[in-house]
Amino acid sequence: MNAKSLRELFESVREGRVSADEAVARLRHLPFEDLGFAKVDHHRALRQGMPEVIFSEGKSPAQVAGIFSRLAAHGGNILATRATEAQYHAVSAQFPKVEYRPLARAITLQRDRKRHGKGIIAVISAGTSDIPVAEEAVVTAELMGNRVRHLYDVGVAGIHRLLAHRSVLAEARVIIVCAGMEGALPSVVGGLVGVPVIAVPTSVGYGAAFEGLAALLGMLNSCASNVSVVNIDNGFGAAYVASLINRR
Amino acid sequence: MNAKSLRELFESVREGRVSADEAVARLRHLPFEDLGFAKVDHHRALRQGMPEVIFSEGKSPAQVAGIFSRLAAHGGNILATRATEAQYHAVSAQFPKVEYRPLARAITLQRDRKRHGKGIIAVISAGTSDIPVAEEAVVTAELMGNRVRHLYDVGVAGIHRLLAHRSVLAEARVIIVCAGMEGALPSVVGGLVGVPVIAVPTSVGYGAAFEGLAALLGMLNSCASNVSVVNIDNGFGAAYVASLINRR
Amino acid sequence: MNAKSLRELFESVREGRVSADEAVARLRHLPFEDLGFAKVDHHRALRQGMPEVIFSEGKSPAQVAGIFSRLAAHGGNILATRATEAQYHAVSAQFPKVEYRPLARAITLQRDRKRHGKGIIAVISAGTSDIPVAEEAVVTAELMGNRVRHLYDVGVAGIHRLLAHRSVLAEARVIIVCAGMEGALPSVVGGLVGVPVIAVPTSVGYGAAFEGLAALLGMLNSCASNVSVVNIDNGFGAAYVASLINRR
Amino acid sequence: MNAKSLRELFESVREGRVSADEAVARLRHLPFEDLGFAKVDHHRALRQGMPEVIFSEGKSPAQVAGIFSRLAAHGGNILATRATEAQYHAVSAQFPKVEYRPLARAITLQRDRKRHGKGIIAVISAGTSDIPVAEEAVVTAELMGNRVRHLYDVGVAGIHRLLAHRSVLAEARVIIVCAGMEGALPSVVGGLVGVPVIAVPTSVGYGAAFEGLAALLGMLNSCASNVSVVNIDNGFGAAYVASLINRR
Amino acid sequence: MNAKSLRELFESVREGRVSADEAVARLRHLPFEDLGFAKVDHHRALRQGMPEVIFSEGKSPAQVAGIFSRLAAHGGNILATRATEAQYHAVSAQFPKVEYRPLARAITLQRDRKRHGKGIIAVISAGTSDIPVAEEAVVTAELMGNRVRHLYDVGVAGIHRLLAHRSVLAEARVIIVCAGMEGALPSVVGGLVGVPVIAVPTSVGYGAAFEGLAALLGMLNSCASNVSVVNIDNGFGAAYVASLINRR
Amino acid sequence: MNAKSLRELFESVREGRVSADEAVARLRHLPFEDLGFAKVDHHRALRQGMPEVIFSEGKSPAQVAGIFSRLAAHGGNILATRATEAQYHAVSAQFPKVEYRPLARAITLQRDRKRHGKGIIAVISAGTSDIPVAEEAVVTAELMGNRVRHLYDVGVAGIHRLLAHRSVLAEARVIIVCAGMEGALPSVVGGLVGVPVIAVPTSVGYGAAFEGLAALLGMLNSCASNVSVVNIDNGFGAAYVASLINRR
Amino acid sequence: MNAKSLRELFESVREGRVSADEAVARLRHLPFEDLGFAKVDHHRALRQGMPEVIFSEGKSPAQVAGIFSRLAAHGGNILATRATEAQYHAVSAQFPKVEYRPLARAITLQRDRKRHGKGIIAVISAGTSDIPVAEEAVVTAELMGNRVRHLYDVGVAGIHRLLAHRSVLAEARVIIVCAGMEGALPSVVGGLVGVPVIAVPTSVGYGAAFEGLAALLGMLNSCASNVSVVNIDNGFGAAYVASLINRR
Amino acid sequence: MNAKSLRELFESVREGRVSADEAVARLRHLPFEDLGFAKVDHHRALRQGMPEVIFSEGKSPAQVAGIFSRLAAHGGNILATRATEAQYHAVSAQFPKVEYRPLARAITLQRDRKRHGKGIIAVISAGTSDIPVAEEAVVTAELMGNRVRHLYDVGVAGIHRLLAHRSVLAEARVIIVCAGMEGALPSVVGGLVGVPVIAVPTSVGYGAAFEGLAALLGMLNSCASNVSVVNIDNGFGAAYVASLINRR
Repeated sequence: MNAKSLRELFESVREGRVSADEAVARLRHLPFEDLGFAKVDHHRALRQGMPEVIFSEGKSPAQVAGIFSRLAAHGGNILATRATEAQYHAVSAQFPKVEYRPLARAITLQRDRKRHGKGIIAVISAGTSDIPVAEEAVVTAELMGNRVRHLYDVGVAGIHRLLAHRSVLAEARVIIVCAGMEGALPSVVGGLVGVPVIAVPTSVGYGAAFEGLAALLGMLNSCASNVSVVNIDNGFGAAYVASLINRR
Repeated sequence: MNAKSLRELFESVREGRVSADEAVARLRHLPFEDLGFAKVDHHRALRQGMPEVIFSEGKSPAQVAGIFSRLAAHGGNILATRATEAQYHAVSAQFPKVEYRPLARAITLQRDRKRHGKGIIAVISAGTSDIPVAEEAVVTAELMGNRVRHLYDVGVAGIHRLLAHRSVLAEARVIIVCAGMEGALPSVVGGLVGVPVIAVPTSVGYGAAFEGLAALLGMLNSCASNVSVVNIDNGFGAAYVASLINRR
Repeated sequence: MNAKSLRELFESVREGRVSADEAVARLRHLPFEDLGFAKVDHHRALRQGMPEVIFSEGKSPAQVAGIFSRLAAHGGNILATRATEAQYHAVSAQFPKVEYRPLARAITLQRDRKRHGKGIIAVISAGTSDIPVAEEAVVTAELMGNRVRHLYDVGVAGIHRLLAHRSVLAEARVIIVCAGMEGALPSVVGGLVGVPVIAVPTSVGYGAAFEGLAALLGMLNSCASNVSVVNIDNGFGAAYVASLINRR
Repeated sequence: MNAKSLRELFESVREGRVSADEAVARLRHLPFEDLGFAKVDHHRALRQGMPEVIFSEGKSPAQVAGIFSRLAAHGGNILATRATEAQYHAVSAQFPKVEYRPLARAITLQRDRKRHGKGIIAVISAGTSDIPVAEEAVVTAELMGNRVRHLYDVGVAGIHRLLAHRSVLAEARVIIVCAGMEGALPSVVGGLVGVPVIAVPTSVGYGAAFEGLAALLGMLNSCASNVSVVNIDNGFGAAYVASLINRR
Repeated sequence: MNAKSLRELFESVREGRVSADEAVARLRHLPFEDLGFAKVDHHRALRQGMPEVIFSEGKSPAQVAGIFSRLAAHGGNILATRATEAQYHAVSAQFPKVEYRPLARAITLQRDRKRHGKGIIAVISAGTSDIPVAEEAVVTAELMGNRVRHLYDVGVAGIHRLLAHRSVLAEARVIIVCAGMEGALPSVVGGLVGVPVIAVPTSVGYGAAFEGLAALLGMLNSCASNVSVVNIDNGFGAAYVASLINRR
Repeated sequence: MNAKSLRELFESVREGRVSADEAVARLRHLPFEDLGFAKVDHHRALRQGMPEVIFSEGKSPAQVAGIFSRLAAHGGNILATRATEAQYHAVSAQFPKVEYRPLARAITLQRDRKRHGKGIIAVISAGTSDIPVAEEAVVTAELMGNRVRHLYDVGVAGIHRLLAHRSVLAEARVIIVCAGMEGALPSVVGGLVGVPVIAVPTSVGYGAAFEGLAALLGMLNSCASNVSVVNIDNGFGAAYVASLINRR
Repeated sequence: MNAKSLRELFESVREGRVSADEAVARLRHLPFEDLGFAKVDHHRALRQGMPEVIFSEGKSPAQVAGIFSRLAAHGGNILATRATEAQYHAVSAQFPKVEYRPLARAITLQRDRKRHGKGIIAVISAGTSDIPVAEEAVVTAELMGNRVRHLYDVGVAGIHRLLAHRSVLAEARVIIVCAGMEGALPSVVGGLVGVPVIAVPTSVGYGAAFEGLAALLGMLNSCASNVSVVNIDNGFGAAYVASLINRR
Repeated sequence: MNAKSLRELFESVREGRVSADEAVARLRHLPFEDLGFAKVDHHRALRQGMPEVIFSEGKSPAQVAGIFSRLAAHGGNILATRATEAQYHAVSAQFPKVEYRPLARAITLQRDRKRHGKGIIAVISAGTSDIPVAEEAVVTAELMGNRVRHLYDVGVAGIHRLLAHRSVLAEARVIIVCAGMEGALPSVVGGLVGVPVIAVPTSVGYGAAFEGLAALLGMLNSCASNVSVVNIDNGFGAAYVASLINRR
């Protein structure tokens, strides 16, 4: 262990077996991580309450269960995104307390239920097909200790539905907006509020939607200045960013 | 001339110099256009009131003036789009009655002032930078004999500005919506009205706007079903389509 | 209910229990939709005869049947696009009167047979592979109360076939043109007629067709000014726009 | 004025000149904005301290000066981005107190010097060519009332330079990272901190950088979960989002 | 029938029942195709020996057999490209003389064995994976009455293999070159010969081959001036063009 | 010279100064080209009458004149494409017989006026803006010894204009079709004739024309099987291929 | 055999049966490869120890076994990449000594175990999903006679993990870096070492990763000058290049 | 200074003023770079002989001169790439010994003339327009202490020219190949040699060359396994990689 080897170096110096000059030289050849980890741990603390995460797509149920098991050893919450029911069953065989959230395609193990976020995170989606991405954001934000409100199916072609729920927008400290097709909703929402909006393009649509590219480009060009963007279908990432903001 | 040669054929038949069978055979070898033009003329009539148009970009003032001069011989309105002031001066030297519309970058000669459109065409634009494209649509629609109303700077990030002018939307028979950046405005407008919306993506924006591509893709993926789209910056084309609809 | 709460507010004013000033203040805090819906209903009227629509792709038969059932409660026509036969059977178990149009991949329930359109909508397609998209347009237009004529397999490489049926073009008030590959047909048709042409690029083709991108770009750059464009394979959207035009 | 017309309606009801039923009906036809503006103003407040902004690119010096003048009437800070020196001179002729920040290509008028942000915003850039974008972020953040620290030329190919300044990262509440070429810096920074990172791709680079596309895609695919992205070269937008977060 | 109606018109003229002037007018309203088909037939002749073609991909065995059956009624050769063995069995049940060429994925019925081409068409392919496309070209060219030589697996990374067979190149009147990946072979071949080279990009490759896009762009930018290009994987089209050239 | 060195080797063998074995060994070390050139010269012959060509874009007048001068030493025709008038003046100072063809932007020196082509090459263009590309094809084909007919401004939106000149199409042995925007003309022409069609996409257009990409994709996806394609704006290449075909 | 026929030619000359002139003429008609192969063999030698390679994707087990069998006749190592277990079983039925490396999806037959490389090749990957590509590189490099060290899961968002293993980097003569998503790892590694880095973008990621395009562009724009790039997922190619370097 | 502060820490330990435990703790808070720089210096040594480099594009002559001046303080060679003559004059005013290499657009100051490379680097280019990129590679490689041979204008459409110079290829230890348009040359060269080939796509070409994209994709898909690729027009990067290889 490396705190140990460092200590031994200092002991040697203290005992006069190693000169200061030689100690400096030796130190430079000690493996880097021995020193670095301390600092890394610093911001580990900042991440307190952040769940361990498994991206389940393309993994076998056994693989997901295996990784889950390893992460579970550390304590804290665990989240497996893009998970199938088969993967869930493999995990729940070992961890009966895990839950499966089918809409979000997520397996969750919530052991830390502390509230880390100061306010409410609103999750809004444009169409019913965007709900899986929105739900991934909801589940992630909840597991990170936030109060979450959602508002679904409030696309821009029926602007009155969104306006009718402006109170939800008004009470949020951060807002996540998921939209496919033309991806216009974040701009409209951004214009209605004075808080940060995290836009999530979804791969919903066909033809010239180009698997989410149209929505992505739309959001990057938002005329609302309070909008920033994450990857297509990345509900998890949006919730992660929103959680960090909500802890400020 | 070809009505003449046709006539001669019939005369020959009438006079017995050519049998019916041979006439049929000969007819098949007559040049195509002799017959075809008639039908073409049919829908010429439908186009009555449509101006002759010059796309001025990349042409010298002399070239624009030359084409203008040729078209002016036929009567009717003339419209030169994407025109510079220099091109205007070259034209106005010959045609003192032409006007220059600087916002629309258009030279116009309006000789037919008949109202062809049944109702109002509304032209809406998202930002001030979209105005040149919107104005091209306005001028075109006017020259085609339509009443036009415009509504500028009503982008989706300030949705209340648009909503405040819903009466303009309500009274239009067709709506043209010009927007750059994320191109979201046609969807919102489309959701508020029950009339056809012609969406014009503009090349306004920078970076991931990719010269209008973002807006174009957004509009093609509009979640409002009453939206159809024309080429980037094609204010003229939008007004042309809108005029045809307004004459129905 | 909200007309009720509004009424109560006025009653309170009338009875002197609430001052005019206070009423103004309270009104501002009433939920938005209470007021907004009224206006929305206005253009609902404009949409009279427009069917309720389900995009069936990616939904289970049970889900389609469920949504169908909910929409059926409102009266009017119902259209499920991109529907499989399995989805049809799930729906027809509850609604024996629904029809399945296999070419169009559509489930229809036609309860309103009123003619809303003033003239004929022509639906034209370039190749036999474009027929499913064209048929989606036909079915949609019929359900919206239009007389529809179709003309299939009249691609530009055999221009005489198209020209041979110019009478169909001549009698249409609006024309929908579906084409994949190079997407050239709308330009040719647009040049032959004086009415609005709605172009639908299809994903038919291979290689550099790039799933409809070639046709889409071709149509957006049409040299015929009366052409506007909808999304790739969006037969429904084209018919929706055409229906609105045909009601003008 | 519209509070007035509302008031008159209530007075009429109170005086019995208008029945409650009729009042409800009339209300529905009142212009929308009369009611809506109130709510809009709500979040105006939230935006307190946000500067008015002019995007100067493509505008003449006279146009920039004109818009500046109009905005200056409202009080508060004013920021003109992408401004040339010529535009600055046109503005400073009227507003001698404006400053020109050449690195940031920004004209600023700072009348509100209140500190709105709770902590420090760090602005980091990868190469010297990214500095104009980074400086735009710095100036914007300052004008929005934040303390700002910057760290330039700490690209990923010399990772020790970044690591040597980890203290700057450690003390920030939000971090803006500007990078062109491969756009890798946000991922590295994101991995070192536990706070939100706003990534700004820049158009720096050549060849396969494709005007910032490479950096943009890189950032959207960041393996660090605390990264969200704004448009290429959008230093202003990044600072706007960061300021909102820093006020939380 | 229309030759009939034309004849009747001439008879009427001959008999004096219709004046020449009126006949001209009536003629203009005769359906177009009556006259047009004659001319179409002209170049039919030019196409003599060209097979009827079915693009089988995405069609059921029954559909392919149905179309085959219809085309077989006209005489001449028939070619079904992109055909599966199942489709072949469906066809051969009705037409025992059809052959299946598995490498080319083609069903052929060769009834016209006349030699139409003047010289040899060489078909060259870069790698073994390009063979299906090359074989489609071979089969097509053979069915169109050409002598065909092929040369496979002579990619540019082993240039000596190509050079070793220069005699094949030397004796060809037209050359078809199929290549995937970087698509460099047509340039090298083009530089070695003085005859037209038809380049066929194939979708062979992975990653940045982007389904044939890399090869396509390479071929369009060939530094050899005698190269023209057809669509990705379009072995049929290349052979069609080559056959026309070989008949000159 | 290398036939000489080869000869010497054989003489040495004949005279017994070099053994057969050693001769084999030496031969293997002779420079490759000594043997290869012979074969190369073969197809030189095939290229007889092909002009030497200079791509003038981006070169100074002096550079063009210099290269011209060097090529002129070999005899035969010389063609400088994409040439400016300034480049022409620099060349004509030395070669008074050169001509400048402004529409084609070409400098030509025609010393060989032999007719090499068997028939007529038709050059067709869709719009007036495509003429420079078409003229480059015309000039190139003429310099290669072909009779050339051109047909301009016969775009697909006015199909009757093309049909009216079908005789031009009918008499051509090869056809070059230049078109920008949607690039549909080659398909229509291809469908009307039974000869090879070389399609040249042009960069004419704006917005979604993407500098000729739309036309290029359209042409690659042509539904007419007799169409092959060259690079955007490559009038020279099209004429080169057409000339080779016309010599068959 | 061709050295033989060359010899015979020289013998004939020596014996006076063939004149020197005729010999020169005959020589020119000898098949090219007779002379060329000698030179080709030269660099064959350079390739000594390079395995014969089969790209197994899309081939049937029987096809892979067949090719394997043919290559095995030449001696040396054989590598089948992108191989399935089924393909392995087909091969091992004939060659019991082959091994299957499931992580690398490779079948190997190692008959030459000579060390050809001078130093160590390090193979580094960013995430666990990149391991198959990295393992392909490992297996390839091993079969080419190199000592290989690997370092997995050292992505840039956890830079300390990479830094902790700098000794692995320090001892390598060439480094292969595999990374998907943003593809930033090669830049960081490149900045830490003074040896050539071969970057392999992987198709790992989703959404805007666009199947490896984001990583590819990132790597091409690396700010570290010692980085060159191979195709997406091309672990084999990277190891091939690295092996050549390691033999220098 | 930081070796100093480290030393002081050890002295304190030695003198008993600080315990070993506390020393460990303190060490962890020392600024990172104090320790890290040492290691960085290690590979500095590896980079011995590598020039300092300035990317001059977009910089004023004064800026280039300023940076040059700063770098010149360190000794060693200096290279300014993409430099204009004006920039050269600004630099040479201060450093009379600098040279300007106009073909390479490079300013060089060569103070270290030691030979670092073991063998020859060959630089090959396809067309005369690729020469600036090739020359940048030549100059860079020379400044890094390599013997360089170049071979220009040996494009794949005249393969005999390349083959005629195979001796140049044969004697190289590393080969750099620059090519625009279809970018096929690296594959051909790669197939002829057994050494690493660094491919540099150039932006030479027009139309579908898309500023070097066609060449880039071609090279990434090279069928020769010994090819790796750098950014478009990146002659410097290619030479840098080649130099590292040549030092192995």
